[in-house]
Amino acid sequence: MSQPYPFIDPTLFTQHAGGELYVDLSAIVQNYHSLQKKVAPAQCGAVVKANAYGLGMVPVAKALAKAGCKEFFVAHLDEGIALRNILGKEYLIYVLHGVPYGTESIFLKHYLIPILNDIHQLQRWSSLCKDHQTSYAAGVQFDTGMSRFGIGQDELSNLQQVDWSIFHPILVMSHLACADTPNHIANQHQLEQFHILKQLIPNCRSSLAASSGIFLGNDWHFDIVRPGVALYGGNPTPSQPNPMKNVISLQGKIIQTRHISKGAFIGYGASFTATKDMRLALISIGYADGFFRAFSNKISATSPKFPGTPLALLGRVSMDSLCLDITNLPEVAIQVGDKIEIIGDHCSIDTLAQEADTIGYEILTSLGNRYHRIYT
Amino acid sequence: MSQPYPFIDPTLFTQHAGGELYVDLSAIVQNYHSLQKKVAPAQCGAVVKANAYGLGMVPVAKALAKAGCKEFFVAHLDEGIALRNILGKEYLIYVLHGVPYGTESIFLKHYLIPILNDIHQLQRWSSLCKDHQTSYAAGVQFDTGMSRFGIGQDELSNLQQVDWSIFHPILVMSHLACADTPNHIANQHQLEQFHILKQLIPNCRSSLAASSGIFLGNDWHFDIVRPGVALYGGNPTPSQPNPMKNVISLQGKIIQTRHISKGAFIGYGASFTATKDMRLALISIGYADGFFRAFSNKISATSPKFPGTPLALLGRVSMDSLCLDITNLPEVAIQVGDKIEIIGDHCSIDTLAQEADTIGYEILTSLGNRYHRIYT
Repeated sequence: MSQPYPFIDPTLFTQHAGGELYVDLSAIVQNYHSLQKKVAPAQCGAVVKANAYGLGMVPVAKALAKAGCKEFFVAHLDEGIALRNILGKEYLIYVLHGVPYGTESIFLKHYLIPILNDIHQLQRWSSLCKDHQTSYAAGVQFDTGMSRFGIGQDELSNLQQVDWSIFHPILVMSHLACADTPNHIANQHQLEQFHILKQLIPNCRSSLAASSGIFLGNDWHFDIVRPGVALYGGNPTPSQPNPMKNVISLQGKIIQTRHISKGAFIGYGASFTATKDMRLALISIGYADGFFRAFSNKISATSPKFPGTPLALLGRVSMDSLCLDITNLPEVAIQVGDKIEIIGDHCSIDTLAQEADTIGYEILTSLGNRYHRIYT
Repeated sequence: MSQPYPFIDPTLFTQHAGGELYVDLSAIVQNYHSLQKKVAPAQCGAVVKANAYGLGMVPVAKALAKAGCKEFFVAHLDEGIALRNILGKEYLIYVLHGVPYGTESIFLKHYLIPILNDIHQLQRWSSLCKDHQTSYAAGVQFDTGMSRFGIGQDELSNLQQVDWSIFHPILVMSHLACADTPNHIANQHQLEQFHILKQLIPNCRSSLAASSGIFLGNDWHFDIVRPGVALYGGNPTPSQPNPMKNVISLQGKIIQTRHISKGAFIGYGASFTATKDMRLALISIGYADGFFRAFSNKISATSPKFPGTPLALLGRVSMDSLCLDITNLPEVAIQVGDKIEIIGDHCSIDTLAQEADTIGYEILTSLGNRYHRIYT
């Protein structure tokens, strides 16, 4: 038996959801415009894979298309099909994971552009073009030192076996491994390699930079850049202040409040012991919502009514709930049903990421299915 | 603008998915039967919140119902509604997060049983029963020392304000904070507290134990137990061998192979440098699939063709891919399109969890949307 995900009615998790995820589409559009301005005359595309980094591919891609974005990047074929269902044929959709054997006709049907990552994919696409006597759009990726996607040094000698008579790629690209660390020696090395390798596919637009690469300077922009996390408010320059606008606010609902006495335990493993009499608020967001268990006994939330008062997360994050210290808030002012900001201006995705020893990208892509996503 | 999740067509991510998640429903049923046998004459319910811990609430709940399970536990109202859509009225569905203000009629409409966690909820439900002159089913939770859900010491004196004339709960429950650590002093304390508090709601079935609590012994079983992770193959006795059957196998597809030379970097941040000439396989699973970035440069996968050869994960886990060392496998035998086991008998959810400093529960609930879920 095989059943697609999700199995639950997609109209669920609206007004009764435990958390509300506000996605500021106008901030995404502003981020897009500021990146487009920065890289002009290069073009600015958009990476919307992984459901637009957890924010919702459909509303995000629609907003970006309306803002002037013409070129979109996804990882999987299935993501490309879903995106094509909402974007007209005039928009270019690149599938970064390439063309799996036997899926060529699906790419053609949906006008999807595979990024060809190895010599076998190149040969297959070239044969397809020859058979149909049509130069179907495709991109070619070279590996310039990340050892991930793309044609590597070990395959370069086979490039001459490809039949280029009908087939001509529309994009040559590579990807940077260390762009978030501007002084890393790998950046300059990859740039030099890209200059050499892209000449193997002449008369073709080229692309090297994603979000962080854009901020390495004009030399890295080539014809088109491919921002993802920067559009969604993540800091592409971790050693500097964030030049992007924050996009999300995650608000959790209080489902219970209680008073506990000094000495009481809180949560699984009794990992926190009250140092005084306290008042607690239980929030209906947990690690099953992608709010990592690694945040246990870390971070603070905030009440929109009392933005200056940090509300410390106490004890372990449970599967479906977390506990906040609301002792310092006026009792009558904070009640069941109130919303508490968990992620937002008071605590960015990058700040959160540091607490869990990860990066803002993973905070975004982990945002859970049970949130009610609200677009503004 | 408000739109429910997901925004992508739920029929996506089937045969083209980057990962296949095999869910062994017969193993879940065997786990259920072994737990039911262990706790008899107590009843064994099932916790299916968080989409049955990421495995798919609909097929899991249907299999458990067929296996004889009569009582199901979810966290959110919306989960209860989704579950009622597939289960007849003869099955009991408890909503652990209680009854939010104003949702009483929705509970009644779908025959959902709220677990009343504070005095206000008790009073509202009691008033509802009086107004309708009907004793609607509900459960009552007491906090016995976890400081999470349930009526706490601070509210006990208000219990006498509740009108019990029409309203009579069908379940009194609490939850253990440290059941996975059998010798933790909190267990005995919570047990004693529960014996005292449950007398406040006389003539009522009672429940204390979830997965780990079941293994603390008969004294903890009361009338009904509420396993979750044990049904899904997680070890409820972390200090002992796992008594449960493994339920899942996660298989990733190879989308590219390459040879690299000694000294080459792998992945973001160049966190791994090849110590010799190597052959790599790129797998189309990444942290956007809930396969944590914390696994970077840790764990091993395995090829079903060569189960004895561990394939080390090298470099950082990317958003949509990860890299394995396949140097020790015969070159012709491992090719693009082959499947590699990432989670399964060779590497359980509990083993994985240790590498990421978390628990098997979070491995399960993080299993991503892009996997093709296949039920056997």
